Amino acid sequence: MIRFESDYLEGALPEVMQALNETNYVQTPGYGEDEYCAAAAAKIREKCAAPGAHVHFLIGGTQVNFTLIAAALRPHQAAVAAASGHIAVHESGSVEATGHKVIALPCGVEGKISAAQVRECVEAHWADSTHEHQPQPKLVYISQPTENGAIYSLAELEALSAVCREKGLYLFADGARLGTALVCPGADVTLADLARLTDAFYIGGTKLGALFGEALVIMNEDINRDFRYIEKQRGGMLAKGRLLGVQFNALMTDGLYERTAQREVALAWRLREAFAAKGWPLYCDSPTNQQFPIVPDAALEKLAERYSFSDWGRADPTHRVVRFCTSWATREEDVDALIADVKAL
Amino acid sequence: MIRFESDYLEGALPEVMQALNETNYVQTPGYGEDEYCAAAAAKIREKCAAPGAHVHFLIGGTQVNFTLIAAALRPHQAAVAAASGHIAVHESGSVEATGHKVIALPCGVEGKISAAQVRECVEAHWADSTHEHQPQPKLVYISQPTENGAIYSLAELEALSAVCREKGLYLFADGARLGTALVCPGADVTLADLARLTDAFYIGGTKLGALFGEALVIMNEDINRDFRYIEKQRGGMLAKGRLLGVQFNALMTDGLYERTAQREVALAWRLREAFAAKGWPLYCDSPTNQQFPIVPDAALEKLAERYSFSDWGRADPTHRVVRFCTSWATREEDVDALIADVKAL
Amino acid sequence: MIRFESDYLEGALPEVMQALNETNYVQTPGYGEDEYCAAAAAKIREKCAAPGAHVHFLIGGTQVNFTLIAAALRPHQAAVAAASGHIAVHESGSVEATGHKVIALPCGVEGKISAAQVRECVEAHWADSTHEHQPQPKLVYISQPTENGAIYSLAELEALSAVCREKGLYLFADGARLGTALVCPGADVTLADLARLTDAFYIGGTKLGALFGEALVIMNEDINRDFRYIEKQRGGMLAKGRLLGVQFNALMTDGLYERTAQREVALAWRLREAFAAKGWPLYCDSPTNQQFPIVPDAALEKLAERYSFSDWGRADPTHRVVRFCTSWATREEDVDALIADVKAL
Amino acid sequence: MIRFESDYLEGALPEVMQALNETNYVQTPGYGEDEYCAAAAAKIREKCAAPGAHVHFLIGGTQVNFTLIAAALRPHQAAVAAASGHIAVHESGSVEATGHKVIALPCGVEGKISAAQVRECVEAHWADSTHEHQPQPKLVYISQPTENGAIYSLAELEALSAVCREKGLYLFADGARLGTALVCPGADVTLADLARLTDAFYIGGTKLGALFGEALVIMNEDINRDFRYIEKQRGGMLAKGRLLGVQFNALMTDGLYERTAQREVALAWRLREAFAAKGWPLYCDSPTNQQFPIVPDAALEKLAERYSFSDWGRADPTHRVVRFCTSWATREEDVDALIADVKAL
Repeated sequence: MIRFESDYLEGALPEVMQALNETNYVQTPGYGEDEYCAAAAAKIREKCAAPGAHVHFLIGGTQVNFTLIAAALRPHQAAVAAASGHIAVHESGSVEATGHKVIALPCGVEGKISAAQVRECVEAHWADSTHEHQPQPKLVYISQPTENGAIYSLAELEALSAVCREKGLYLFADGARLGTALVCPGADVTLADLARLTDAFYIGGTKLGALFGEALVIMNEDINRDFRYIEKQRGGMLAKGRLLGVQFNALMTDGLYERTAQREVALAWRLREAFAAKGWPLYCDSPTNQQFPIVPDAALEKLAERYSFSDWGRADPTHRVVRFCTSWATREEDVDALIADVKAL
Repeated sequence: MIRFESDYLEGALPEVMQALNETNYVQTPGYGEDEYCAAAAAKIREKCAAPGAHVHFLIGGTQVNFTLIAAALRPHQAAVAAASGHIAVHESGSVEATGHKVIALPCGVEGKISAAQVRECVEAHWADSTHEHQPQPKLVYISQPTENGAIYSLAELEALSAVCREKGLYLFADGARLGTALVCPGADVTLADLARLTDAFYIGGTKLGALFGEALVIMNEDINRDFRYIEKQRGGMLAKGRLLGVQFNALMTDGLYERTAQREVALAWRLREAFAAKGWPLYCDSPTNQQFPIVPDAALEKLAERYSFSDWGRADPTHRVVRFCTSWATREEDVDALIADVKAL
Repeated sequence: MIRFESDYLEGALPEVMQALNETNYVQTPGYGEDEYCAAAAAKIREKCAAPGAHVHFLIGGTQVNFTLIAAALRPHQAAVAAASGHIAVHESGSVEATGHKVIALPCGVEGKISAAQVRECVEAHWADSTHEHQPQPKLVYISQPTENGAIYSLAELEALSAVCREKGLYLFADGARLGTALVCPGADVTLADLARLTDAFYIGGTKLGALFGEALVIMNEDINRDFRYIEKQRGGMLAKGRLLGVQFNALMTDGLYERTAQREVALAWRLREAFAAKGWPLYCDSPTNQQFPIVPDAALEKLAERYSFSDWGRADPTHRVVRFCTSWATREEDVDALIADVKAL
Repeated sequence: MIRFESDYLEGALPEVMQALNETNYVQTPGYGEDEYCAAAAAKIREKCAAPGAHVHFLIGGTQVNFTLIAAALRPHQAAVAAASGHIAVHESGSVEATGHKVIALPCGVEGKISAAQVRECVEAHWADSTHEHQPQPKLVYISQPTENGAIYSLAELEALSAVCREKGLYLFADGARLGTALVCPGADVTLADLARLTDAFYIGGTKLGALFGEALVIMNEDINRDFRYIEKQRGGMLAKGRLLGVQFNALMTDGLYERTAQREVALAWRLREAFAAKGWPLYCDSPTNQQFPIVPDAALEKLAERYSFSDWGRADPTHRVVRFCTSWATREEDVDALIADVKAL
């Protein structure tokens, strides 16, 4: 079985493993107060052109999301997200478990929300004479790329940022697969843009070559104040925090993170083109490492003999949407094989 | 600087690193539903002589504690712990953040609570005519070994278990350093005893040779029901869950976990004896891998030039309590050097 | 100004005030453990034909809703409600503040959800291979009557109850205006039906002649266990609990509650007929004490000079939906005046 | 049976009942946005010499406490209270249910904490290198009078206020029986002092002549911001909010509140003197409306035939501490009778 169902099927990039192996016997303080975390944070600040950025290393994406949101909001405040946003649908109610509602805005298959939608949501809230009887929208959560692989353009991000600042909301970007959104065809948002335009965002490691780990970049001092307490309280502070520092130090050195993302994206685009050549429409126009062809049931049955992929639901009585992911570990020859098999169907 | 201040200063046992390296390219499903987790769980069940035990692998101790407690309690129920228990003093209010009070029972330096204390706490609760105005004690949290290195004897554990069962409370044991309590001089509690006598306990990996990770063993079906939802919700479900399975699989093979604990304990006892020979009393009688000598300030100042250790507070105007930990990575020669330097003071 | 904008504009029925005045100097124990609460509960149990029902008196509807839901659910479980349900839109995220998501099902203007929708929601949850990554639907919240005044028929309620029992969900009915749903034209659901078909429901007092207070009837022993702790914890246990008992005792005597509801409904139907005669369509077919005509802007402007009502939003460029409520205190002559003025417009 | 066991055994002062009766048919907006609340708030602001004070009327003390604390704290912050403070022992873990730890400081029978204790607690927190692993003390909760009837002097309150301001903590005073602390022998703290020295406090109505209700005075703009959302979310916003306004308007008119407190205290002092004359020591030196004599078992048995009182625990093998409370409704002749019976024992 050749597996394409997700991008966290394997361990970590050899450079990451090597760094972990090489530093294994080094003694460091715990809880992220070590030299590796410091070095990785410095590299990230530099890449973000944000000398004042606060960088925290946490273990997984769900954890980053609810910890950041819990740190940012007062009890009556809510996060605003696309209806298909990860916090709205795939984190087991973790934001609600911290006491906050997720206000889900309607969105298309791309999974994006617009500045206009945010404006309308916020203005409608304050215009309603019973607004005190409703959760107050205070933080906008977006995913870059989205859960369906689409990306926000710089213009879209600037508009979102502008409306958030005008209305006093925080803007937070979930970057579980951020690397792919930085390097894919059409990408025009940089790390420096994210640092400039958001209050916080994270650079995902788990799905981009690390064993595990996400680098949370907080630009807003109010959110960052005492963040480490909350990180500890919510289980996000790793005793051997240096493991995160070591990994991100490797990823942030010599462009490894970007090169890994480029490779993932390049392989994904080979798939995308093969699907197109086959005449399979795409459920969503994703320029990143996830591809969502709409495939006849018969073809899927055949493919499933040799390949794994994720089911994304029925498209019509005879077709399904499926997801193929590439990862840092995806082998060129496996992509070749899949393309050949698709072609031959 | 030779460091003894904690047991999570280094990476992981070579066997653990090797297992991670060797499995790095294997593709597995995520979220702990892989073959390595299954194999590690099977080994743990066997060691516990508990074929029906449910084993979940989480990332860190604080996370295990609050997730288990959140899964076990209804909103008005409280955890009962020693006043020096980790959940009472060193987890940033993480249990309270899930909505539950930690009822702190007074304890001596050993950090243990007795069955009689639990009985009194519970009976006093129910005897009070205003008990509905107070949190209801429902879960007893103990640490084996305790935060100060002491251990519960089998008789003590049986008494705690008996009173919990009689009164309808859950018994949960924090085993961050459990291995050392299984093998140290005087130890008479086995994994099978823990499985038989508690509702849940965890086998700590982070402080016993793993990079990170704790194996939570749940014996009680009511607590275990839907536990994975809550694990996900609270950030404890690792995307690449197999990393935990691979590590625990290694630790649970060929007695690696026990051997590692034995080595830690043996080195700690060498320190303990050196401190005794020096005439330094022990703050707490710990038979495990943490030792707490009461040391003259002058001697500490001297030692601090070459060694790191943890400050445990002032004992009297001219002495402090300090903690020396051994770990899987502690080198024989470093212990030799420390002993020689202590002797020479 | 003659006010029709809500049904909680005045104090309480004279019989309720009289009971409070007459018992003012009687000494009773606090926290609902008095003879008046006992007597009122007995009357409610009898009306419900439910000798085993547990009756708790709380202060307000939002409080009842979140306290009951917090008592019923484990951390990963969610309440399912109509998108226009009170807990979903008008309680400031109070359910989320107890840690639970409200899953909003689409609904029409009537604000009802069907057994088929609940079945689909639950079956889709369990059929999804990633269900552990989503909140688990466990309690269905309905309002009888709904926020827009519509009522569930007995057949609809039986179907909801059946699917909840089949799927292991709790069914909870918000009865802020329950009396009106018991007596209105077309009503076929009795208190005994609610007791038989739900796990819990409440009989609203605030909007039906009491100064304040809601009688929560819990049929399910699992939810009721230790409920008073949670009631106290969430601020719902009134020190002078007897105030609630005295009021409900009055309301439940000699059919006062039903008579009050009948009067409210009768007056509302007079308005309904006047709106119909005027040719104003109804936004929602409400047989209870709230009426929602769609009114030309010019007419509204004129009416607003003499009457108050609630704005329910714009219907089209020249019409708005507005709400007129009758209450226990609405005067016949005020309804006459409004009808005459509508007619004369 | 003549009852002295608490001060919430009866309804409300005749002036309060009269005001409720007289306003019963007046139509007002809901949720505290009515003229009575406005008028009562204005009177309170004037009494507090605090034109900028924010006054919110809630229903009960537990509710005020947890709502205020939830509004004031970020997730990792804790409330500091005397070990016998109401939030620490008699509110069913309601503060923890909002996610926050209550740090209990040791206290004597008076139930007071000192500025020095607060200073030590806060300085110890920040001096600890692992402070991020512990809840951060951020709000000091005191009761005026305390649960055992003692009062803080102006000097004590000023010292507490000074240390809180120096250290950046909020100071919050629970005034469930505040009136008695304003007027009792030895009292030197005024409402204006409380407004000047705290960030928030409440003026209790339930135990001082109202049917129910507490007037929360918030001086700190940061806490007050959006408070009404949180009040609604936590169930503290009464639909017919005017009921609270009407009651406090009556209490705050013509010195009714103070006169009621004076009467309660005067009657309590008659008891106090009778106990002293009898040779019964006081468990706690309470100058307010609760008195705690230490009484021989035999005498108690005799008294219990005619009087009710609260048991406060065993003092020694032959004596118990009991509580006698006076209230707005306590009759002179009942106090006479009790005094005569005590004397005659």
